[in-house]
Amino acid sequence: MINIALVGYGYWGPNLARNIDACPLTTLHTVCDLNPSAEARVKNFHPNARFVTDFAAMLADDSIDAVVLATPVSSHAPLAIAAFQAGKHVLVEKPLSESSEAAAKVVDASKAAGKVLLVDHTFCYQGATRKVKEFIDSGRLGKLFYFDSERVNLGLFQSDVSVLWDLAVHDLSILSLWHDELPTTISCTGAAHLEGHPVNMCHMNMKYPSGFTADISVNWLSPVKLRRILLGGSNNMVLFDDLDPVEKIKIYDRGVTMPESESSGNAGPLAYRRTGDVWMPQFSLAEALQEEIKHFAACIEGREAPTTSGEMALTLVRQLEAADESMRQGGAPVQL
Amino acid sequence: MINIALVGYGYWGPNLARNIDACPLTTLHTVCDLNPSAEARVKNFHPNARFVTDFAAMLADDSIDAVVLATPVSSHAPLAIAAFQAGKHVLVEKPLSESSEAAAKVVDASKAAGKVLLVDHTFCYQGATRKVKEFIDSGRLGKLFYFDSERVNLGLFQSDVSVLWDLAVHDLSILSLWHDELPTTISCTGAAHLEGHPVNMCHMNMKYPSGFTADISVNWLSPVKLRRILLGGSNNMVLFDDLDPVEKIKIYDRGVTMPESESSGNAGPLAYRRTGDVWMPQFSLAEALQEEIKHFAACIEGREAPTTSGEMALTLVRQLEAADESMRQGGAPVQL
Amino acid sequence: MINIALVGYGYWGPNLARNIDACPLTTLHTVCDLNPSAEARVKNFHPNARFVTDFAAMLADDSIDAVVLATPVSSHAPLAIAAFQAGKHVLVEKPLSESSEAAAKVVDASKAAGKVLLVDHTFCYQGATRKVKEFIDSGRLGKLFYFDSERVNLGLFQSDVSVLWDLAVHDLSILSLWHDELPTTISCTGAAHLEGHPVNMCHMNMKYPSGFTADISVNWLSPVKLRRILLGGSNNMVLFDDLDPVEKIKIYDRGVTMPESESSGNAGPLAYRRTGDVWMPQFSLAEALQEEIKHFAACIEGREAPTTSGEMALTLVRQLEAADESMRQGGAPVQL
Amino acid sequence: MINIALVGYGYWGPNLARNIDACPLTTLHTVCDLNPSAEARVKNFHPNARFVTDFAAMLADDSIDAVVLATPVSSHAPLAIAAFQAGKHVLVEKPLSESSEAAAKVVDASKAAGKVLLVDHTFCYQGATRKVKEFIDSGRLGKLFYFDSERVNLGLFQSDVSVLWDLAVHDLSILSLWHDELPTTISCTGAAHLEGHPVNMCHMNMKYPSGFTADISVNWLSPVKLRRILLGGSNNMVLFDDLDPVEKIKIYDRGVTMPESESSGNAGPLAYRRTGDVWMPQFSLAEALQEEIKHFAACIEGREAPTTSGEMALTLVRQLEAADESMRQGGAPVQL
Repeated sequence: MINIALVGYGYWGPNLARNIDACPLTTLHTVCDLNPSAEARVKNFHPNARFVTDFAAMLADDSIDAVVLATPVSSHAPLAIAAFQAGKHVLVEKPLSESSEAAAKVVDASKAAGKVLLVDHTFCYQGATRKVKEFIDSGRLGKLFYFDSERVNLGLFQSDVSVLWDLAVHDLSILSLWHDELPTTISCTGAAHLEGHPVNMCHMNMKYPSGFTADISVNWLSPVKLRRILLGGSNNMVLFDDLDPVEKIKIYDRGVTMPESESSGNAGPLAYRRTGDVWMPQFSLAEALQEEIKHFAACIEGREAPTTSGEMALTLVRQLEAADESMRQGGAPVQL
Repeated sequence: MINIALVGYGYWGPNLARNIDACPLTTLHTVCDLNPSAEARVKNFHPNARFVTDFAAMLADDSIDAVVLATPVSSHAPLAIAAFQAGKHVLVEKPLSESSEAAAKVVDASKAAGKVLLVDHTFCYQGATRKVKEFIDSGRLGKLFYFDSERVNLGLFQSDVSVLWDLAVHDLSILSLWHDELPTTISCTGAAHLEGHPVNMCHMNMKYPSGFTADISVNWLSPVKLRRILLGGSNNMVLFDDLDPVEKIKIYDRGVTMPESESSGNAGPLAYRRTGDVWMPQFSLAEALQEEIKHFAACIEGREAPTTSGEMALTLVRQLEAADESMRQGGAPVQL
Repeated sequence: MINIALVGYGYWGPNLARNIDACPLTTLHTVCDLNPSAEARVKNFHPNARFVTDFAAMLADDSIDAVVLATPVSSHAPLAIAAFQAGKHVLVEKPLSESSEAAAKVVDASKAAGKVLLVDHTFCYQGATRKVKEFIDSGRLGKLFYFDSERVNLGLFQSDVSVLWDLAVHDLSILSLWHDELPTTISCTGAAHLEGHPVNMCHMNMKYPSGFTADISVNWLSPVKLRRILLGGSNNMVLFDDLDPVEKIKIYDRGVTMPESESSGNAGPLAYRRTGDVWMPQFSLAEALQEEIKHFAACIEGREAPTTSGEMALTLVRQLEAADESMRQGGAPVQL
Repeated sequence: MINIALVGYGYWGPNLARNIDACPLTTLHTVCDLNPSAEARVKNFHPNARFVTDFAAMLADDSIDAVVLATPVSSHAPLAIAAFQAGKHVLVEKPLSESSEAAAKVVDASKAAGKVLLVDHTFCYQGATRKVKEFIDSGRLGKLFYFDSERVNLGLFQSDVSVLWDLAVHDLSILSLWHDELPTTISCTGAAHLEGHPVNMCHMNMKYPSGFTADISVNWLSPVKLRRILLGGSNNMVLFDDLDPVEKIKIYDRGVTMPESESSGNAGPLAYRRTGDVWMPQFSLAEALQEEIKHFAACIEGREAPTTSGEMALTLVRQLEAADESMRQGGAPVQL
């Protein structure tokens, strides 16, 4: 049994606590929160967990194997590094850090300590996204052409984080799960329509060496909620609609066909549309966070390698930074 | 009765012919096509129309009041200029021309001749887009924040025109109808996923002096067809879904509210989400092309001023050129 | 080439004329309408067809091989019988007649003359309904449980025909195509919500010897338009949504599973839900009416046997009569 | 503070417990379950509630003001009557009883004791159904024509209850909330497609003195889940789609218009379709069960009269019994 200390019992912490509790491989040993008033809520739902407020003292407890960080982003790096130095495994909420420089230090600390670093990019543990990954890995999409996502709604404006770091990070993590290639150029345009508030609407474009392209649109000021990703390939295409409770994944046997011979002179080759059946595969309905906690345990036990590893999470932070840089330059493309 | 000569009886020409025939103010006097084999089809559907193949000779016929051009884009400018010089009014298919230089010459020729120039941006004559315009003009949207459109499907690849000139031109025309301001910067990223073919996927961003922004996404390689525009304002927001046969327009009483006083210190002001009723107004189901032909007749008779005028169409050609220029520069913003 | 005379050039006649014209196996030889004013419209669209107003005289013309009747329902039987007596093949609009007695006489006349009788149940020639039939015939649905359809909209009230004969006839024809069994009992409840008008809303139930059941709901006073059929089987189930332009057919690998052994005592066996993939097959987009005309020609040439034969159409008239009888009895079941 | 004893901690009980806990007017004083193993679950979530297994002994506790019954249907009547005799108020899960005879006795016991009887028809406390009721009460629907509902899905087969008592009871309760008139005739057809199992598919029709009609379709063997009610009136119509997370209620300014004068002779009057705007009002998103518990408390305190009273619930049981009787008679109409 792996003893886990959860740090931060605010908005997301209780979900982590519940899943640590429910996982047969882990025990919610300790909950740490700076605010003593959290104790009552912790005790109500997790009477067997110890409650503490002193993070440093807690790290000294040898019975704790791993630390889960659900604290503000700016604290991720220092707390994670301290935990690694105390010999703990670490699961940290997304994004790994607010800068790639700090994120890289966390990755280094993980390696120096020889301990597991996992980042809570929950969408990578969803049954639906994993089913799409299986399909991609089967090769049946053909040559991968593009990823095009839309994640918009009437959202809460956050005081310190833009819509990019709040929402686009999810699309970037799914993209990273599905497509194993690094972009070379990132462009991003954004707008802050409300004075004194962060950017509330972004369109991000990434170009890849293979010709693959990725576009991500996020918006906090949309009257409707959309969670939609198109993945285009030469043989098949995927529509992933995360708001559809049942028909989340549609795989279209659609694409283009090139004529076999090219005897004709100066005219470019013609491409023909091809439309076939549509297939909506079943996928696991298991809670993504539960799958993630199980995976964290398996990594600690050495049975699996981290899916949402520190390296992967660092890559996403670099992409977000490049997008911010592009916005500062009015949308100019930034090389990675 | 206005006598009209239609030039070009290919894909779009028959639709124009039918609507010229049906309009009580116009007569389909002549159809001109370089290909003599078109005559049989013309005679079958329009037995009273004369068929000719010689455009120049036709222009000499004084009984013809106006010329409608449904010919390839590259021929628009020379044919329209010749028609103006012969003292005809001109309705020309979109886009007005393949270059802003040529388009400007057509506008000049129209002015020199004192004849009407109308461009066939059909979406501007749709009951639904005009109903939205009414709502915008009423001021109830509040401050206009953004226009965000998506026009994707599994489309025919065209040999000489990119998806930008094929599809985005429609969004630009609707945007022009709805929002009376010129952009100062245009960025556009695009990809040609099939070798030897034009760009099949674009994301275009436009920035305006008022803070308004416009984003347009077009794609010929999407497994699903989408025709969707979001228009965001501070008081209300609009969803225009052109594929919904009935519920094309939804007006959301949604937005953000700013707290009245700003006594707090360094923290930015908070914005609150506000959600209210949704309203789907009725709109005219009249065929857009018929409305356009009626409007053309009314402009010739001096009763109305062109909605999709040469100046407006020239503006759109300039925006498409700037987007092409941005794509050539890898997505860098281009000043207008 | 089969020479066809179309009788009746009102609402539906022009569609038939266009498809007879377009079919390479048939010629629109003559159009007959009692109203001489129809001639101008006929000549405009079908300059090569002869126009007549005298049905009896027309039948004497030996160059006419077949007659297509698009006249009011009450005239179907007498006109069809006269045509058979004159040695013509007959395609008659649905329903075959307003009474099963008259319909039976038409079937008899067809047999006596040895000529083809086809009834215009157009839905039986749609690519989508035929694709579902293929799937049913493959046996993969398992045991067929039920047919449940809904055909509602804000419709035109007709002065002489109830919603049952106007709309339910379509569902009955699709049901007849898909399921080859005759019902033994029919119940029908209906309501005429507007005084002085026919029944505008009906729910019809049919029971079959095999345990199969069919339910049909039709309504002229619905604010929304629905065209939806569920077909339930033990292994798979079908959703046919005729309003979806693309995803008309969904085949669900869903059903119930019975446990293998039944060792338990008095408790009934448990059934388990089973959910698997969903499949949306491609289907032919050919116009149903064109397929029907081709089929009519093939029947005349002896290459095919009528799908929507007189016998099949007579069966549907009997079902509609039984439903009317049940409504007169307040919804009581009527034996067939 | 009202002290409540919850009886039955199975499937639905925990939801009631949570809402009793959350309501500021009530305290979850005691949980009673025959099965001692329920105690651990109760203690985990409600450490302050007492757990008992002896119902009769519990009734003797004077500190308990009210009893909430979440036990099998067959136990509702005896337990409720005992509770009334002990001077408690009672909230009982739906349906009130499995027979109208027993249900009537519960109503009588409530009256004899002078205590509140409320039945847990939760849908009557939903923000959306209450918003529709407001609209109906405003009179803007005009004359009410019909209620037509569909509640289908791939459901769990229950061993002792048919789909009618499981699902149709919800539609009947909403209908009762919206339309204050009693039906005079009920017809119901049903089918048990799986041998040894209860009826899994029903269509129920009810006729009312005013000409109003109600149709309810329920099905446990549908591949898709539908929760849809149409409510037709002469001036406006309502679509209530309970599965739509946002656009649950659509009010259509649609109907029929009768011509003013009727000078014409034998022809029936014509009705014209009328289509106007559609309106989707905001409604309360409060949890229905919480509203119900608050209402129960308000009834106990004498501030409100029961919405889902014993009399109302008894009416629904009578309608279900009549539907069962109609099914036994093959669908014949049954007088109420």
